[in-house]
Amino acid sequence: MANSHEVSGATTVTVQDGNVTSPCGFTAAGVDAGVKKPGVLDMAMIQSDRPATAAGVYTTNKVQAAPLKVTREHIAAGPLRAVVINAGNANACTGEQGERDARRMAEATAGALGLQPQEVAVASTGVIGKPMPMGVIEAGIARLAGALAVDGGTVAAEAIMTTDTEPKTGKVEWRIGDQQVTIGGMAKGSGMIHPNMATMLGFFTTDVQIAPALLQKALQRAAQVSFNMVSVDGDTSTNDMALILANGAAGAPAIETEGPLYDQFVQALTALAIHLAKAIARDGEGATKLIEVCVRGAKTEASAAQAARAVAASTLFKAAVFGNDANWGRILCAVGYSGADFDPAKVDVYLGHVQTAAQGQALDFSEAEALTVLQKREVRVTVDLHDGDATATAWGCDLTVDYVHINADYRT
Amino acid sequence: MANSHEVSGATTVTVQDGNVTSPCGFTAAGVDAGVKKPGVLDMAMIQSDRPATAAGVYTTNKVQAAPLKVTREHIAAGPLRAVVINAGNANACTGEQGERDARRMAEATAGALGLQPQEVAVASTGVIGKPMPMGVIEAGIARLAGALAVDGGTVAAEAIMTTDTEPKTGKVEWRIGDQQVTIGGMAKGSGMIHPNMATMLGFFTTDVQIAPALLQKALQRAAQVSFNMVSVDGDTSTNDMALILANGAAGAPAIETEGPLYDQFVQALTALAIHLAKAIARDGEGATKLIEVCVRGAKTEASAAQAARAVAASTLFKAAVFGNDANWGRILCAVGYSGADFDPAKVDVYLGHVQTAAQGQALDFSEAEALTVLQKREVRVTVDLHDGDATATAWGCDLTVDYVHINADYRT
Repeated sequence: MANSHEVSGATTVTVQDGNVTSPCGFTAAGVDAGVKKPGVLDMAMIQSDRPATAAGVYTTNKVQAAPLKVTREHIAAGPLRAVVINAGNANACTGEQGERDARRMAEATAGALGLQPQEVAVASTGVIGKPMPMGVIEAGIARLAGALAVDGGTVAAEAIMTTDTEPKTGKVEWRIGDQQVTIGGMAKGSGMIHPNMATMLGFFTTDVQIAPALLQKALQRAAQVSFNMVSVDGDTSTNDMALILANGAAGAPAIETEGPLYDQFVQALTALAIHLAKAIARDGEGATKLIEVCVRGAKTEASAAQAARAVAASTLFKAAVFGNDANWGRILCAVGYSGADFDPAKVDVYLGHVQTAAQGQALDFSEAEALTVLQKREVRVTVDLHDGDATATAWGCDLTVDYVHINADYRT
Repeated sequence: MANSHEVSGATTVTVQDGNVTSPCGFTAAGVDAGVKKPGVLDMAMIQSDRPATAAGVYTTNKVQAAPLKVTREHIAAGPLRAVVINAGNANACTGEQGERDARRMAEATAGALGLQPQEVAVASTGVIGKPMPMGVIEAGIARLAGALAVDGGTVAAEAIMTTDTEPKTGKVEWRIGDQQVTIGGMAKGSGMIHPNMATMLGFFTTDVQIAPALLQKALQRAAQVSFNMVSVDGDTSTNDMALILANGAAGAPAIETEGPLYDQFVQALTALAIHLAKAIARDGEGATKLIEVCVRGAKTEASAAQAARAVAASTLFKAAVFGNDANWGRILCAVGYSGADFDPAKVDVYLGHVQTAAQGQALDFSEAEALTVLQKREVRVTVDLHDGDATATAWGCDLTVDYVHINADYRT
């Protein structure tokens, strides 16, 4: 799983096997509470053994699920000690009862762990508009509290999955002075995944000590170039949320100001977030391939990001990738409607290493070579706008017959 | 096919069977020129027997095909006499050669009909980034000129189809004074169809006499509430274009100023454009159902339109409709990310006549009743924002397994 990413043109950060219990001072658990089918893991909990500075980013959808309101309030109130998460029910469009239920999840978790409710963050994912099965949820919280373990990060990552086919986890390690420090993470994705959001569900833990404002800034930057650059289907969820808890348990010097220590932290967090974002794209509903779209030569990072996301989200290009069809015209077409600022007469397009267009016009490329690029499990598209120095990368997946089957949920 | 539409809350306009040769003074033709497979109709021509005032609206994609540039120039230069159209090749991303080819299409048409090149509009649709087969195109133009007929509108509508499964045509008739006047139209759609554009390919003819500025204004308004409110797959094409030719052949009084005569014209054109737009949505690639999304109670028409288009374009809701799944949460979710200005706590949602949510919260509705709504060939969604008086309607289609098959164009 080791996976290296160039971040901000600086040193390469290596993402290793690991999860939210990799940093010091964190335990986690996952149980089959019964929100989903019997026997399927559907609730998870993360605990820090000491108060942890916390930061969050949330969906930009105007319709926001109840847990987002509660978690925002609790992070604003100060450090966190725990996060409780359920799959199977989003607790969205559930009104005042939904808000009471989200608060009750924090209270039950606090009760079981001897904390204050405002020290608990709450996250939910699943179907919209159904009441929360609170009996099942509260029993699950009691079991989670009893199951917390220093090696619980793996089962926790499995328990937050919905239509994901595999858990998404990782860790990064580096040194602050002589002290090794770690960030661990887990995420779920799969459907209702689209760029113009805050993020999908992602949870990070770290034993670094860092000032709250810097932690928030670092998380926003990392989410911007990772989760916010992923699209599975163009639908932005009501429940997206990424959280980070920083508990300082490693005992390394605190990061109190911007500077080299902060930059290292941002690089490490960004590398892990990109690792998880790519895992989400690769495991998009029904996907058989990861699509990576790199736009370079843009006037601004915003234009590069708009163009990259439009290509990664293009229904027609995604269907072409599924079919191994070198239909590069759909790439240039998507850049054209992306809103990016560019000159169509300057654009070069590459499928893998095969250049298909130069200065906005078709080249007579080898269809056979393009086919070998498209048959791979990872398809890389490069678009050079020749209009500046800014770059951005977005990730998506192919559009397959299975995506339709998964989301049609046939009734007759 | 008779189809009535309430337009602007005013009198109901009835769209009847008819096409671009229904108005006086127009002939048309379609031939199998050989741009596509042998024996498949792939080129069309429309001619007016006298100079016709013309107006056009075009894609907002920054990448624009060569024919759009040529047609814009020719409309700016004055009245038109003819339109030449090919399917099978978009003449997009073809550079200077593409522009020369588009100009040559106008010249060849002008030569065959005894006109000036700037009296000819050119439109193309098909694959992006391939050189135009000009030998085949020029031979097709010669055949078209010889085949022009007063009953040629039907075959012309068939000849502009790409993955469309049926031609899309209609006409509206009304009186100006004692004189009957007519607008006829045809369109093609099917794939690469999405709201944030000028339009897809649509051609209107009318025997009304109307000032150029008013004709342009009327076409823009009609496109705004018809073609621009349709989505098949979220991809905005490089070749979208709608044109109207008004030749005055009916001999009715000219429409020279805004007022009742102009309003009647706008209503008639809008009704026909909506008829064609719905036909495009119904015949979207792989579609089995038409989805109509009505948003009411919005603060502004812009907000209503944003919300309606987001629901009609939501991949997840479209897949749910294919599966007869009453997943109304995906409707509210799409309104939430649409950018529309609204209060989530005020929103009511209906599937057909079945209310599924009130004030943003789930209702305990009958799944069986919702299923009967979803099993119909036309599924109507109503969203009431309870926030003002503005309304908008958008059209889309379900997302099916066949859409993926059509667009994957499998290579192995």
